[in-house]
Amino acid sequence: MPTDSMIRLLTLAPRGNQKIEWIRQHMSVLDCIRERFAETMPFENKNIVMRLHIEATTACLAILLRDAGAEVTLVQADPLSTQDDVAAALAEECIKVFGHYGSTLEEHQSYQKEALESKPHVVIDMGGILTHLLHGECHDLAGNFIGASEESTTGVKRLKNMLANGKLKYPVIAVNDSLSKYLFENVHGTGQSVWSSIMNTTNLVVGGKVVVVIGYGWTGKGIARKAKALGARVIISEVDPAKASEAILDGLSVMPLVEAVSKGDFIITATGNQGVVNSQHLNVIKNRAILVNAGHSNVEINKCDLEAVSVESKEAAKNIRQYTFEDGRKVFLLAEGRVVNSAAGDGQPAEVMDISFALHAMAVKHLIDNPDKKPDVSKLPRKLDEYVSSIYLHSMGIEKDELSEAQKNYLSRFPF
Amino acid sequence: MPTDSMIRLLTLAPRGNQKIEWIRQHMSVLDCIRERFAETMPFENKNIVMRLHIEATTACLAILLRDAGAEVTLVQADPLSTQDDVAAALAEECIKVFGHYGSTLEEHQSYQKEALESKPHVVIDMGGILTHLLHGECHDLAGNFIGASEESTTGVKRLKNMLANGKLKYPVIAVNDSLSKYLFENVHGTGQSVWSSIMNTTNLVVGGKVVVVIGYGWTGKGIARKAKALGARVIISEVDPAKASEAILDGLSVMPLVEAVSKGDFIITATGNQGVVNSQHLNVIKNRAILVNAGHSNVEINKCDLEAVSVESKEAAKNIRQYTFEDGRKVFLLAEGRVVNSAAGDGQPAEVMDISFALHAMAVKHLIDNPDKKPDVSKLPRKLDEYVSSIYLHSMGIEKDELSEAQKNYLSRFPF
Amino acid sequence: MPTDSMIRLLTLAPRGNQKIEWIRQHMSVLDCIRERFAETMPFENKNIVMRLHIEATTACLAILLRDAGAEVTLVQADPLSTQDDVAAALAEECIKVFGHYGSTLEEHQSYQKEALESKPHVVIDMGGILTHLLHGECHDLAGNFIGASEESTTGVKRLKNMLANGKLKYPVIAVNDSLSKYLFENVHGTGQSVWSSIMNTTNLVVGGKVVVVIGYGWTGKGIARKAKALGARVIISEVDPAKASEAILDGLSVMPLVEAVSKGDFIITATGNQGVVNSQHLNVIKNRAILVNAGHSNVEINKCDLEAVSVESKEAAKNIRQYTFEDGRKVFLLAEGRVVNSAAGDGQPAEVMDISFALHAMAVKHLIDNPDKKPDVSKLPRKLDEYVSSIYLHSMGIEKDELSEAQKNYLSRFPF
Amino acid sequence: MPTDSMIRLLTLAPRGNQKIEWIRQHMSVLDCIRERFAETMPFENKNIVMRLHIEATTACLAILLRDAGAEVTLVQADPLSTQDDVAAALAEECIKVFGHYGSTLEEHQSYQKEALESKPHVVIDMGGILTHLLHGECHDLAGNFIGASEESTTGVKRLKNMLANGKLKYPVIAVNDSLSKYLFENVHGTGQSVWSSIMNTTNLVVGGKVVVVIGYGWTGKGIARKAKALGARVIISEVDPAKASEAILDGLSVMPLVEAVSKGDFIITATGNQGVVNSQHLNVIKNRAILVNAGHSNVEINKCDLEAVSVESKEAAKNIRQYTFEDGRKVFLLAEGRVVNSAAGDGQPAEVMDISFALHAMAVKHLIDNPDKKPDVSKLPRKLDEYVSSIYLHSMGIEKDELSEAQKNYLSRFPF
Repeated sequence: MPTDSMIRLLTLAPRGNQKIEWIRQHMSVLDCIRERFAETMPFENKNIVMRLHIEATTACLAILLRDAGAEVTLVQADPLSTQDDVAAALAEECIKVFGHYGSTLEEHQSYQKEALESKPHVVIDMGGILTHLLHGECHDLAGNFIGASEESTTGVKRLKNMLANGKLKYPVIAVNDSLSKYLFENVHGTGQSVWSSIMNTTNLVVGGKVVVVIGYGWTGKGIARKAKALGARVIISEVDPAKASEAILDGLSVMPLVEAVSKGDFIITATGNQGVVNSQHLNVIKNRAILVNAGHSNVEINKCDLEAVSVESKEAAKNIRQYTFEDGRKVFLLAEGRVVNSAAGDGQPAEVMDISFALHAMAVKHLIDNPDKKPDVSKLPRKLDEYVSSIYLHSMGIEKDELSEAQKNYLSRFPF
Repeated sequence: MPTDSMIRLLTLAPRGNQKIEWIRQHMSVLDCIRERFAETMPFENKNIVMRLHIEATTACLAILLRDAGAEVTLVQADPLSTQDDVAAALAEECIKVFGHYGSTLEEHQSYQKEALESKPHVVIDMGGILTHLLHGECHDLAGNFIGASEESTTGVKRLKNMLANGKLKYPVIAVNDSLSKYLFENVHGTGQSVWSSIMNTTNLVVGGKVVVVIGYGWTGKGIARKAKALGARVIISEVDPAKASEAILDGLSVMPLVEAVSKGDFIITATGNQGVVNSQHLNVIKNRAILVNAGHSNVEINKCDLEAVSVESKEAAKNIRQYTFEDGRKVFLLAEGRVVNSAAGDGQPAEVMDISFALHAMAVKHLIDNPDKKPDVSKLPRKLDEYVSSIYLHSMGIEKDELSEAQKNYLSRFPF
Repeated sequence: MPTDSMIRLLTLAPRGNQKIEWIRQHMSVLDCIRERFAETMPFENKNIVMRLHIEATTACLAILLRDAGAEVTLVQADPLSTQDDVAAALAEECIKVFGHYGSTLEEHQSYQKEALESKPHVVIDMGGILTHLLHGECHDLAGNFIGASEESTTGVKRLKNMLANGKLKYPVIAVNDSLSKYLFENVHGTGQSVWSSIMNTTNLVVGGKVVVVIGYGWTGKGIARKAKALGARVIISEVDPAKASEAILDGLSVMPLVEAVSKGDFIITATGNQGVVNSQHLNVIKNRAILVNAGHSNVEINKCDLEAVSVESKEAAKNIRQYTFEDGRKVFLLAEGRVVNSAAGDGQPAEVMDISFALHAMAVKHLIDNPDKKPDVSKLPRKLDEYVSSIYLHSMGIEKDELSEAQKNYLSRFPF
Repeated sequence: MPTDSMIRLLTLAPRGNQKIEWIRQHMSVLDCIRERFAETMPFENKNIVMRLHIEATTACLAILLRDAGAEVTLVQADPLSTQDDVAAALAEECIKVFGHYGSTLEEHQSYQKEALESKPHVVIDMGGILTHLLHGECHDLAGNFIGASEESTTGVKRLKNMLANGKLKYPVIAVNDSLSKYLFENVHGTGQSVWSSIMNTTNLVVGGKVVVVIGYGWTGKGIARKAKALGARVIISEVDPAKASEAILDGLSVMPLVEAVSKGDFIITATGNQGVVNSQHLNVIKNRAILVNAGHSNVEINKCDLEAVSVESKEAAKNIRQYTFEDGRKVFLLAEGRVVNSAAGDGQPAEVMDISFALHAMAVKHLIDNPDKKPDVSKLPRKLDEYVSSIYLHSMGIEKDELSEAQKNYLSRFPF
């Protein structure tokens, strides 16, 4: 019984169950792993705390972990991405859920700490938040702690910084660095879901428009590629010369952001950093530009600066806030500057999370199977990464070739 | 005063107004024409009946016509595409509105006839329905009737058939045959909005999937192009050899539908015809295929056949009906087989309708300025078509070149 | 015996034959029509004069016409596109050939008139040149003349002008307006062969470069599409507002040419007009820009202006002339400003010409079967166009669907 | 004086010089580095042997090394890629050149050893051949040897194998693993030049055709992407599940090769391995398939098998050999199975080699600056890689952004 859950609205559970059932049909990689783990029970007597967006795809991972023997706790990664009906459905499935849509910052932070009270052996983390708490404020709850599987690029950067400063005490698997994950999620999943949520929120045409993408990492690349595919002219702003060169060779324009914002109809942040769009840019931004954050948290677009330069702000449509500047220019901010595909959409497509969560499941198993790894931020072993790809191909009915023995040998020989 | 309107829910008007205000900012071509017509009042003392989807973009056209002096009546084209809040907002703007979301077939048909009671001078029609009624059942309301501006391909085909049979008594402008319209709406608008509504409804990834598009006319072409751009493998089924050849040259596969449905993850109709997907195809359709109609009405996918071969049918998610066959295969039908971007989305993007409705406004003007045209189904004169393109370019801040006099002359000369 | 041929270098014939044999394997549509016509001999006792590029693909059309019973004469369309080895091989095949690589303008013009001495029943023309001569200077050779099948856009424009001025005395089939022709040749064939000849001539990378395409007709569209596909950023210059709008919606930039030339790494004309790039543009052109004509004749880039502003000109590489301006800027002109894919490449890919020449064969048959058509410039009847598409699909092993009887009827019915 | 050079045809030098001068204008990154190195002379008194294709781009690298103070020797990587005119021109520039077009295998092998007689400090190697010789047969010439900069994937694999077996005695920089190199060369350069040489050799259309690409590494990816861009339907054959998954998500088909060859119009190897296309595939290969090697050496397509199953073989056109099978099927092999863009084209586009060779120049400098590195196969340090990207951006006139101090700090902080 979910007596310690924050979920009061259990009447929402049926709708949550319907969502989960629909999604589950499209997460066949996870389902295949779940079936195998349900037999071998690799997570028996282990406590696992997941910090992720509370939505139907996450529910499928939670159920896998439970069926593999774990005690599972789920805490929200973002108050505005929490789907209360899914939370309610999970609570009925013996999974502890902390979070509710629209909770205050205080409630949100307090949920994180309450979740850790289950004394996790492993955490599936987003942003490194739980891992960081277990090093400091919640240090007393780290007794069982073996290590973390980290979801986000920002989290990986922060934890690598802890490692560099000698402060990291546990091993971390950077699932985001897995080949499968960037292929499926960052390039394809995010690109699609960011545009599907923008199109659905604004009902504006993308073809013929100028799209500015800030940051040409995996996320930015996915967004830019789909934008081009939808018929937009794309401008990239970057700080890394190699990524800027890649953008040029991909047929895109590259220019400093302060120049780009005066041309952009859609301006999309994907840097993982803060204050990327600020007053310097708002001074010259194109009238009626649509501002979108597709990167991280709600700090990439500086809302304080936005409010400071505006004489009026109002809701123009659902998830669209209209700011009017003194000189009459307007800009439209989607989803209050939160990550658009979660906050104004259903998050990543189901099959993308299928791969991503399969990698987390393998990472959790790798940590539990190797409890004495030294502190490090490392990739998932290539073998496990390929294992997930293989299940994916199998689920799609795709066959691949094999090297012959002669071919295996060939590459080590010199012709003369 | 909207006393004869069907709209009872005037409390919805504020939300409708908010929608219209947002959309209006993105319909600058229409707005530019509206400003010019508000001065010259070309539609003074004219009654205009529009049969279109009742949504915010349509509202902007209605307001233009009103500001140009017309008495405007709007009747729904589809009960499931009617947005009651927009209807309510329009009712407050002295526009007669007939329609409500979810009305029965009887109510729907009766609305069409009631709308004609305003004795239109011109109708903006979809499917040729109003024009047909004015030739037959509502013949007594045709006293003022000058001609029609027709929106849909299906309508044009029907009216051309009437023309061929000597039954057409009035001139019809086939706005769908305008260059601007197929560029903006059919290729770009429909392609985008069909995918945005599919992605939003299903939350499934398109990349890596097999998409079958039935019909490679303008609509099908737009859908196929965006599908390829989103990373899908695309199969076309066609009956016309030239269109099939075009698909091949566009890098797509072409095969008979009965073969294609066994490979398709998404199967999308765009033919304007009936019974395109029927029991012959359901017998061999791929398990978990998503069935989508993006063409016309709700007849392209044969729902009777679908129900006949199923042992169970239930709602899998909002706008997704799951059918289970005897052999265990499932298929998912979106939006009950109605046109997906209207029935499970917000219809065409605003700027697409901006062009389309600008062409209707020009067509209405052309009809009113030339009241004695003989019965025919013709294109909008090329000059008016280019006029709309010019306003579009102007609104985007784009400049174009001009031919020099020498160049104008060059093409008529022979070198020796 | 080709005693009246200009071809002296019959030793080249074997190499020409090898070229033709290779190409013939890839022209299966033409070969299928040739087999059918060889049985029915529809051109028996007819004289046909072809004015086309003398290359292997053209040879296959000449052989078809001969096998269908005609007396065939071939005259070069451009001295720099003539392949002497192919000419030699054709001379051995009882086809009269007029032309040699590098002939002077005088020789070239004289060839045209000599070719007409065979008193053609039908001409296959390019640029309307033969048709024009038969109206004037060679009027006395027009005794048998029934009509012409015209290949180029420029020719069609000129002949339409003659029609408008009441000067056209014979029917002309504008093969270029056939659906199949623009699909295969203009969009796909020209796009590919222009880029393949540019890449082969310059060995420069296209990805990451700025490509300016002047003219967004079928040819320009094909070039722009492939440029984008190869990773370039594409700028269009246009005079027609509808075409400029289409470019915008296709995700391309549009700007006046004088602005575009300052940004372009490759500047490509595709207008069919003269003096498109002139001193006004050379004043501001980007240093090291590559100038390419892909449109018509050698007049699109004004070479007089180019020489006037240059202090030096020399051959930088085969088919590349380097001009140095007073201020030190250089520009490179490909193939002396002649149509690049013919003058610095092998012309259109074989399968593209397969379709194009199949349409000419059908056009010739249509003219001969209907000898009393009145003067006009008209399309090939849609039925013949579809016939060619059908043979193409068949040759590719592609099957298409058929409408059911119910579906054929459906489109003429109204629902109520 | 090139008295010890194999070059007898010094009359070719002017044409070689013209080629080099043209190419040099398009290698601005190399030119910028050359200018800097000509001042600091970092390679003074060092002997450098380069094993590369002898063409104009390679010449520019040789000149840079010479201007930086080195004694430079160049030996051909492939007898069929050697351009005698470029070799002649280089011989005049005080660079020792070993190689001539069409040399026998014996001559070719002997050239390699003669080249090493200059006792190199550093080699720029392709295939690890020189490095391997310096470990064995030419061990006595290794007295000065510091290390190698390796160009090809195959070479890297072989040298890594030597490392794994404890046999590698010197450090090797795998330039191919540089970010800049795979961006510019493998993805963009090879993709473009492979297609440009295929199109130029065959004059066949790519749009609408089925292209089979074997191997979805960087090279295969580049070829597949351009094929799709040119309008082909692309099938990938792969042995690695992650790469196969990537292909699927990129919208391509994946199937076992033995199935794919029966559908392919173009079949292109890009594996770096041997016997990839063999009798097993020839048994079922599509009639008239074009066989192309874009990977490595001339072993990917098994020519013995090809000859064994053929009843006839002849030259169909320049660089196209036609094999006829017993059952009448024909296949066409390009460039005798050698790497197509070198053997039937001008190799990589100049600007691609500009980056690639700039990386080699930096690698040579890194080796000379760090003469005591231990045996290893490692990447070029990221800093040097970014240095080359920065010069590229600068040469293109592209500006990029910089992180603010606040942003640099942000990524190391946790929000709570």
